[in-house]
Amino acid sequence: MDELKVAPRPTGVGEMFQLLRDGQPRTRSDLASLTGQARSTIAARVDALLGSGLVSPAGEATSTGGRPPATFAFNPAARVVLAVDLGATHSRLAVTDLAGTVLAEQGEQIAIADGPRPVLDRVADLGLELLAQARRDPRDLVSVGVGLPGPVEHSTGRPINPPIMPGWDDADVPGLLTYRLGVPVLVDNDVNIMAVGEHAAAWRSVDHLLFVKVATGIGAGIISDGAIRRGAQGAAGDLGHVAVPGGSDLPCRCGNTGCLEAVAAGPAIAAALSARGLAAHDSADVVALVRSGDPAAGREVRDAGRHIGEVLAACVSMLNPSTIVVGGIVAEAGEQLLAGIREVVYRRSLPLATQHLRIVTSRTGARAGVLGAATMAAEHVLSAAAVDALVS
Amino acid sequence: MDELKVAPRPTGVGEMFQLLRDGQPRTRSDLASLTGQARSTIAARVDALLGSGLVSPAGEATSTGGRPPATFAFNPAARVVLAVDLGATHSRLAVTDLAGTVLAEQGEQIAIADGPRPVLDRVADLGLELLAQARRDPRDLVSVGVGLPGPVEHSTGRPINPPIMPGWDDADVPGLLTYRLGVPVLVDNDVNIMAVGEHAAAWRSVDHLLFVKVATGIGAGIISDGAIRRGAQGAAGDLGHVAVPGGSDLPCRCGNTGCLEAVAAGPAIAAALSARGLAAHDSADVVALVRSGDPAAGREVRDAGRHIGEVLAACVSMLNPSTIVVGGIVAEAGEQLLAGIREVVYRRSLPLATQHLRIVTSRTGARAGVLGAATMAAEHVLSAAAVDALVS
Repeated sequence: MDELKVAPRPTGVGEMFQLLRDGQPRTRSDLASLTGQARSTIAARVDALLGSGLVSPAGEATSTGGRPPATFAFNPAARVVLAVDLGATHSRLAVTDLAGTVLAEQGEQIAIADGPRPVLDRVADLGLELLAQARRDPRDLVSVGVGLPGPVEHSTGRPINPPIMPGWDDADVPGLLTYRLGVPVLVDNDVNIMAVGEHAAAWRSVDHLLFVKVATGIGAGIISDGAIRRGAQGAAGDLGHVAVPGGSDLPCRCGNTGCLEAVAAGPAIAAALSARGLAAHDSADVVALVRSGDPAAGREVRDAGRHIGEVLAACVSMLNPSTIVVGGIVAEAGEQLLAGIREVVYRRSLPLATQHLRIVTSRTGARAGVLGAATMAAEHVLSAAAVDALVS
Repeated sequence: MDELKVAPRPTGVGEMFQLLRDGQPRTRSDLASLTGQARSTIAARVDALLGSGLVSPAGEATSTGGRPPATFAFNPAARVVLAVDLGATHSRLAVTDLAGTVLAEQGEQIAIADGPRPVLDRVADLGLELLAQARRDPRDLVSVGVGLPGPVEHSTGRPINPPIMPGWDDADVPGLLTYRLGVPVLVDNDVNIMAVGEHAAAWRSVDHLLFVKVATGIGAGIISDGAIRRGAQGAAGDLGHVAVPGGSDLPCRCGNTGCLEAVAAGPAIAAALSARGLAAHDSADVVALVRSGDPAAGREVRDAGRHIGEVLAACVSMLNPSTIVVGGIVAEAGEQLLAGIREVVYRRSLPLATQHLRIVTSRTGARAGVLGAATMAAEHVLSAAAVDALVS
């Protein structure tokens, strides 16, 4: 009984769990043959996973004779995560299971400018309310995912000089929420979590996807080879201050001129419409005017789409995505924006990069962020190392 | 003896080998405790790897009493790969070990326009000569890596409408070379293999690197989260036909106007110098003029650097690399090109993305491609699945 001398290290449990994450029921034999590990090791690990609830019995396999063997499968309902999508004036929270299925959800008005402590205290309170609504014990909560409307250093979860979040620079967002909720907290910028949410919910089989948010600002989240790419400081996808080719010399709030945001974001379109005497103060007004059929608003949005298309053409040449998803409130204006984007992207990019490229509006809409925060939080606790810690 | 019923599946050998790839010597006990596998399984797998030569004895570990246990380590000299870097008029081939150490190397003039069969026949002949020079048996060759000067569908290894490779469109490059050499052949475009080579040889600890080649064309290879990112059709990094912000309406060979290549590649600089009456027909002439101290050539190269900087500023905002490496023949002009690039990138990108950004010239120079082809070929045969196949 050589193998009894080898104490099964906790690391092995998490790795074996990865084989079960696809949700397919498997027998102990299946797992032994997939891993090459001794049956006694497999049996101990299956027991540990059953004990944690992450894996549950899934009936009996068909047998070639004798007693049919029991099967086991990943049980996403075993634990829950809290997903938090914070904007400048609005929040959306959800409690989901480990597969991102929403169990309870609520949006409300907030003022991000109140600063981290009051905003995050309210997040924790509402999170606990949502857990109660979902009839889940607070001890079932394993992690929190948070999206913020500004640059975030992903490794520490701290905002870095966020322009529209006064008082939040370098705030210990994970520390403040962990203190209240007692679990790990993952933080990213809003556009990255929207990209992750849209990808997980609607485009899981697409490996190269660019998610573009057009709202008060313009930004992108990059999915490449199936995963979000944040770059060296977590600043990847910052399209808003790229110079528009053949663009204007309009001043931008960043200090440069001709930035994409200065010519094509919601406020720029609203300003152009106001100058024509239309009542357009923000992105929502722009969307309402376009939907009401106002031709000037339609033209301005299409023009904004063309400017965005100029920058996206460079992104297409650079990243060669197969899918560009356009989200954010201005995308709710619909086809006018997409028509402008498509016109320029297909003209300005090389045929090899555009022949299979689709450019579409977001399928998850206003839920993209909260779905992405849930995915980020769940991924964190389902890694091999995290499962080892959970069952040990 | 429960574990005897479990036939150790070949898959386990390759996975165990991954633990040894860092080159550190380990004992059977180390491996048992890292994997949680039974000692008898470990012993069988170590024997299989010793038999293949991929792992070799590495002396004895220090002992706490009793006979000191034997250690084993990855042996990169066990096999060799052939690395092939093909340009329009020049080839460079090398035989390297599995760590990319060059054992024999040769460059020569070629004409890529002769078409795939004569060019690849010569590659195979020269590859066999280099194996002999390195005193390695042809049976030690396990794979070939090839870089081509045009777009390549990486999954099939076939060129796709390559503009400067007449006769090569959709050519079965892997098939032709495998027929001669009997091993798997990996193909990618020249800029991607240069990025891989520069990263492997000089920047292994950098996770986000952009390699920019400035020569007859302009292109980039993207290293993100430590790996090359090719995009959906393998077309990522195609900077040459991005419109230069504030650029000219110079016609480009692609049919558009104002492309980066049309204003800043070697031929464009040479044309601008010719128009001033200087003897500059190609990139090499431009480099020679700059090196001779010609002030007009210096100014033109710096201007080209500024145009490249306009496009790289967008790439920095988009990808947030920590390192940009500039290679290709025009980079041999030195600081003038880099000064132009730096001037615009640091002015046009946001502080978060540039505060830790370095912009440097290639350390591997003309060897970047061949080193990258070797790395690509070696990675392919050292994956878990490939090692399983090798030892089974």
